[in-house]
Amino acid sequence: MTEPATGPARLEISRAEHAGRRARLAQRLQDSGLSRICVFGPVRVAYLTGFHFAATERPVALVLTDTGDVTMLLPALEAEHYAHQCPDLPEPLTYPEYPGGGSGRHPLTLLADHLRASRPGRVAADHDGYENRWGYRGPALSALLEQPVHDGLALIDDLRMIKSPAEIALIREACRWGDHAHRLMQDAITPGANELTVSHAASLQATRDLLTALGDRYVPKAREGLPANTMFISGANTAHPHGLHRNAGVQPGDVLVTGAYGVVGGYESELERTMHVGEPTPDFERYFAAMLAAQDAGLAALRAGRTCAEVEADVREVIAGLGLTHLIRHHTGHAFGLEGHEHPFLDLDDHTVVEPGMIFSIEPGLYVPGLAGFRHSDTVLVAERGAERLSLYPRDLPSLLIPAH
Amino acid sequence: MTEPATGPARLEISRAEHAGRRARLAQRLQDSGLSRICVFGPVRVAYLTGFHFAATERPVALVLTDTGDVTMLLPALEAEHYAHQCPDLPEPLTYPEYPGGGSGRHPLTLLADHLRASRPGRVAADHDGYENRWGYRGPALSALLEQPVHDGLALIDDLRMIKSPAEIALIREACRWGDHAHRLMQDAITPGANELTVSHAASLQATRDLLTALGDRYVPKAREGLPANTMFISGANTAHPHGLHRNAGVQPGDVLVTGAYGVVGGYESELERTMHVGEPTPDFERYFAAMLAAQDAGLAALRAGRTCAEVEADVREVIAGLGLTHLIRHHTGHAFGLEGHEHPFLDLDDHTVVEPGMIFSIEPGLYVPGLAGFRHSDTVLVAERGAERLSLYPRDLPSLLIPAH
Repeated sequence: MTEPATGPARLEISRAEHAGRRARLAQRLQDSGLSRICVFGPVRVAYLTGFHFAATERPVALVLTDTGDVTMLLPALEAEHYAHQCPDLPEPLTYPEYPGGGSGRHPLTLLADHLRASRPGRVAADHDGYENRWGYRGPALSALLEQPVHDGLALIDDLRMIKSPAEIALIREACRWGDHAHRLMQDAITPGANELTVSHAASLQATRDLLTALGDRYVPKAREGLPANTMFISGANTAHPHGLHRNAGVQPGDVLVTGAYGVVGGYESELERTMHVGEPTPDFERYFAAMLAAQDAGLAALRAGRTCAEVEADVREVIAGLGLTHLIRHHTGHAFGLEGHEHPFLDLDDHTVVEPGMIFSIEPGLYVPGLAGFRHSDTVLVAERGAERLSLYPRDLPSLLIPAH
Repeated sequence: MTEPATGPARLEISRAEHAGRRARLAQRLQDSGLSRICVFGPVRVAYLTGFHFAATERPVALVLTDTGDVTMLLPALEAEHYAHQCPDLPEPLTYPEYPGGGSGRHPLTLLADHLRASRPGRVAADHDGYENRWGYRGPALSALLEQPVHDGLALIDDLRMIKSPAEIALIREACRWGDHAHRLMQDAITPGANELTVSHAASLQATRDLLTALGDRYVPKAREGLPANTMFISGANTAHPHGLHRNAGVQPGDVLVTGAYGVVGGYESELERTMHVGEPTPDFERYFAAMLAAQDAGLAALRAGRTCAEVEADVREVIAGLGLTHLIRHHTGHAFGLEGHEHPFLDLDDHTVVEPGMIFSIEPGLYVPGLAGFRHSDTVLVAERGAERLSLYPRDLPSLLIPAH
């Protein structure tokens, strides 16, 4: 790999961009006649503040007013970490511990007191209280406030749909490492190889290469997990779209469905490939070609100005033309970014208009019971001129064959 | 490591035990005057059925009646996988795709139709609708049913507090692999070693050893992740209880706070250690000894019949006696099992009575700003006679020193 990168550009979203997101959300609150929004989802909190943290049963909540003021509710143990990550944001409102740490108070009652004591007006939230994560139990926010809480999830997540140039650059970089990790994994798969250990060895080597190449430009955003990841499932198991690992070695004749992704600055990429160990059968070749044609159709169909449903309809038309509609088990793809799946979806019932800056997976699958699953997935950017594939791994069958000996 | 295990005992919860859990929950519904409960939390669904799946934006819900009948709402793509995992349960109610897959219907409307068409009576749920996972958006169940939904989370999670002999056996086995993985990690840490790559290499080797030793007895329950895991953070970063990785090599003089856990049959263990690279300073030794005294107090205090708050009070008394109360950032521990943290908590505001069969972490921490964090954590079973430590890794300082050269 290359030498450590020089230059100061850390691979993360800037404080200014986080401030811009909050300003846009504050404007949306004003436009909706809402005075404040409580944000409980950890990824949404990170999106709006840059505060990435280990989400636990200890509630974290961001309160943003329509004038852009920020109050963060935090357990005391996160206060120092927060001040370090978000030096431009005001002192948080802290509680000693969940469920109370001797205060005799549930943490959400502090939040409710703050909301009651600050400005009046309608309150929105992405969820009516803290989500039931791990052992958390707690009241609904509406019950504490004794007033309805407006569902404000879409106010935030609609902003997240359109990626900024900085977000796209991070996802592009993540794709580079997904591709690299997948190459290492493919090169290591041999008959007898165990699914878990081969893929994790590749993840580990790819991570080493990433750390060497990016140096201090790479900024970890998660407490666990690697920045370059691979996995695969094999055999008839692949006929389940979300099949779990089989604890067995790869066998000649096996079909593999792989996955590889990078995580850079908190943003993920997506890459999946259908592979074959040894000489493929004519049946395999036929389904593989059909799957590839369906993915080609998706790549051609994804254009700004069309709806998600229209993209999906184009893909289904190609699959129907091949007489294989009965092998479909899921829609063509999903948006993603900070999370592995995000709204919207390339689905017949999603009428969201596709816009430049959106990032989708294109991954129509064909599932042949008892034989195998067939699915490639790529990270695709909606550019002004059409779809741009950011994951560049080969898609053709000869490139995806594992020697049987 | 040992040879592959022989004998048929797969390391997982039996179908009969899952049925017993449902019978107990049905009884609790009857006792509460509830006719049905909708279970949306993926871990709760797995607890009650043995169906482990990749939780996504596609809603999954279990409906259990007070007479023990089961209806599972699933996306079509999970149907085959479900039938394979749960052959004793009836055909699921499936929907084509989220958000609709061309059906023109949100998946939760099928669930609401089912609930309206089946038996009358009050409905409970662990959450008022599917949780906002990934890009999911959807209505509250109470809005669809046009009637209040009883909060039934505790009906399930209170059952989960007391572990059965089979659950305890899985956690005991998970501890064995957490200990082993930690040993491999400790042996690999040297000055200059990178946090991410050293710990993941240890996880990978421990996983290889586990797969060799357990053979077919090990049954994967997750789509991602390894059955043996390690991580550590180092330096002043450890002074944040949930500090994120530092992308830098270990240095002589660093304090390390580690974590290692196994996952067997879906059940986790917990093990954390405070370590030091090179000769420790007198300051370090003093705080280390105080932390160890606090953990000893927790181990002695955890006995059936006492409350969680009383256990915490005992630990705090020891820390207060050392004049170090100002260094506390969190309570002494938490229950766990299928999830890394579960209810209840060893906290001054948790008055749950400790009972035999509960599993807790005991992990009082001392955090010295600018210096380091000091925390050991162990997996502890509440047995009839007192606390039994299931993680057996050494706790003394000499055993936890990394040579500086």
